[in-house]
Amino acid sequence: MTSTARRTLVVAVSLFTLGSASVGAQATPLSSWNDGPTKRAIMTFVRTTTDRSSSQYVAPDERIATFDNDGTLWVEQPIYTQAVFALDRVGALAEEHPEWKSAEPFKSVLARDEAAVAKFSEADWEKIIAATHSGMTVEAFNDIVADWLAKATDKRFKRHYTELVYQPMLELLAYLRENGYKTYIVTGGGQDFVRAFAPRVYGVPPEQVVGSAGKTKFTYGPGGKGELLKSPDLLYVDDKTGKPEGIHLVIGRRPRAAFGNSDGDKQMLQWTQAGGGPRLMLLVHHDDAQREYAYGADSKVGTFSDALMTDATRGGWLVVSMKNDWRRIFPFDP
Amino acid sequence: MTSTARRTLVVAVSLFTLGSASVGAQATPLSSWNDGPTKRAIMTFVRTTTDRSSSQYVAPDERIATFDNDGTLWVEQPIYTQAVFALDRVGALAEEHPEWKSAEPFKSVLARDEAAVAKFSEADWEKIIAATHSGMTVEAFNDIVADWLAKATDKRFKRHYTELVYQPMLELLAYLRENGYKTYIVTGGGQDFVRAFAPRVYGVPPEQVVGSAGKTKFTYGPGGKGELLKSPDLLYVDDKTGKPEGIHLVIGRRPRAAFGNSDGDKQMLQWTQAGGGPRLMLLVHHDDAQREYAYGADSKVGTFSDALMTDATRGGWLVVSMKNDWRRIFPFDP
Repeated sequence: MTSTARRTLVVAVSLFTLGSASVGAQATPLSSWNDGPTKRAIMTFVRTTTDRSSSQYVAPDERIATFDNDGTLWVEQPIYTQAVFALDRVGALAEEHPEWKSAEPFKSVLARDEAAVAKFSEADWEKIIAATHSGMTVEAFNDIVADWLAKATDKRFKRHYTELVYQPMLELLAYLRENGYKTYIVTGGGQDFVRAFAPRVYGVPPEQVVGSAGKTKFTYGPGGKGELLKSPDLLYVDDKTGKPEGIHLVIGRRPRAAFGNSDGDKQMLQWTQAGGGPRLMLLVHHDDAQREYAYGADSKVGTFSDALMTDATRGGWLVVSMKNDWRRIFPFDP
Repeated sequence: MTSTARRTLVVAVSLFTLGSASVGAQATPLSSWNDGPTKRAIMTFVRTTTDRSSSQYVAPDERIATFDNDGTLWVEQPIYTQAVFALDRVGALAEEHPEWKSAEPFKSVLARDEAAVAKFSEADWEKIIAATHSGMTVEAFNDIVADWLAKATDKRFKRHYTELVYQPMLELLAYLRENGYKTYIVTGGGQDFVRAFAPRVYGVPPEQVVGSAGKTKFTYGPGGKGELLKSPDLLYVDDKTGKPEGIHLVIGRRPRAAFGNSDGDKQMLQWTQAGGGPRLMLLVHHDDAQREYAYGADSKVGTFSDALMTDATRGGWLVVSMKNDWRRIFPFDP
């Protein structure tokens, strides 16, 4: 080996180590968080609940942390990414469904009538989700989502949706895991939709994704092989009261820490706090129109109502100001 | 320290090490299994799927093993333990329900009419389960089950039900975990019922118990604190086709190994096998009337039909003969 080759190798190894450090053990935890009361409160919670000599010590088995997804881990504006996916799927499936040309809500989607889509009711969206999220095996659906995410991009940022994740929250996920916390996603979005990218993007395995779920149907496919088909029927909605209910169903333990950003997360945080002892409740407040979005009670998605802010103040929940608490928003930010 | 004291300490440390070995790393894995093709096939599967140089290697993340509970991990005869619990609860709650004295199926239970109970329909049992498994918080239910299990005993063996677990299967659970497999229980029984003892008895945490589940309802209890009440409404039945469906819902991955003992486990094993590559499917056959029970197509619970035996032969599934494959049945056996 020449001395240049050896030097190159040393540099490569160093870079590799640095590279691993950002996903694994962080030399400086939460480095994209500005110093301040929010960051300090998070670090104090983690330090005291993992220190055996502390009165706030929490046994490793009980270290459960639950994260909302839309607006807490990735961008949810101007509409939920899963809704964009569903609309694109209507287009992709239109040839197989000639009847959609004259049947709402599909007709408006195919006509790219954005004003009509913006006014879709819950029932309209349910029809669209049912039509685009069923009829295939669970593995085929996973592939469809993964393929779409690899191609589709957000209009404003010109980035893949999986790039529009919050760097400070990725660091928080990693920091909690380094300290023995099991990190779960608890989303009002589709469980199978989020499972298609959570392992790669968040380091969260499929069994730690709790979400709204359709029924599946076990049947025998080609060659008599057992398979699971996604059904258009809904099993449960993992939002609002459905969040603590979904947590009990899938996890069976009360979280020690819960993270959200909207009225849909209120009950998850309340249930977490009601467990008593050391608990961390945190809401992300979108107040940075320049780097991301600013919205509150007026928002169509991820509403952060004035009542929720009152609940947060009363409960002593942490409220993250994206503008002030986060040095970077996205992994691609300088 | 005197030399006697030192010797005592050395002996104590050795005993401690041996003691740990039976729950943690087993010096001799599967020691309650007789040598033979079944034990060898299990060990070959585990060795090849965890050997990086093997073509059968399975990444740690994908090492999911699912176990039925009734008849696979513990005794299910003469009736399911959860049914005994439910009948006892009818007695305990009778004072609060004077109407039960004249309303079936409760009337027969309170009259200790065993012949009538033996003839209960599915609908009768649903009424009994709904009446005894709802109306309290999830934590209160957990305590009720734990208290009952600490007191109730089986008539034939004069043992607590949690002692009537199969020693060879406890060793199999531990052996799989030592080799990086995540062990799940996938039961037709109640998810919350099994969670009340699975951590202590099987070393399986609540989040790794998949079972039939009632709905829960988030509400505000004393002091306005968030709590989850168990509802009498069923969310889903985790039996037969419900097993692969429940596995997808809670785990979101196809198991690499699945263990059952009855027709209710067939679809779980079929779905496991259909994933291709190295997979282990095993059925426990109860053929030991002397040490436990012998039953098959004629059984009221845990039926092992002739058709299931045909499926097992065709699929190349392992069938454990309790009589021949297991040196010990229970932890208390000599």
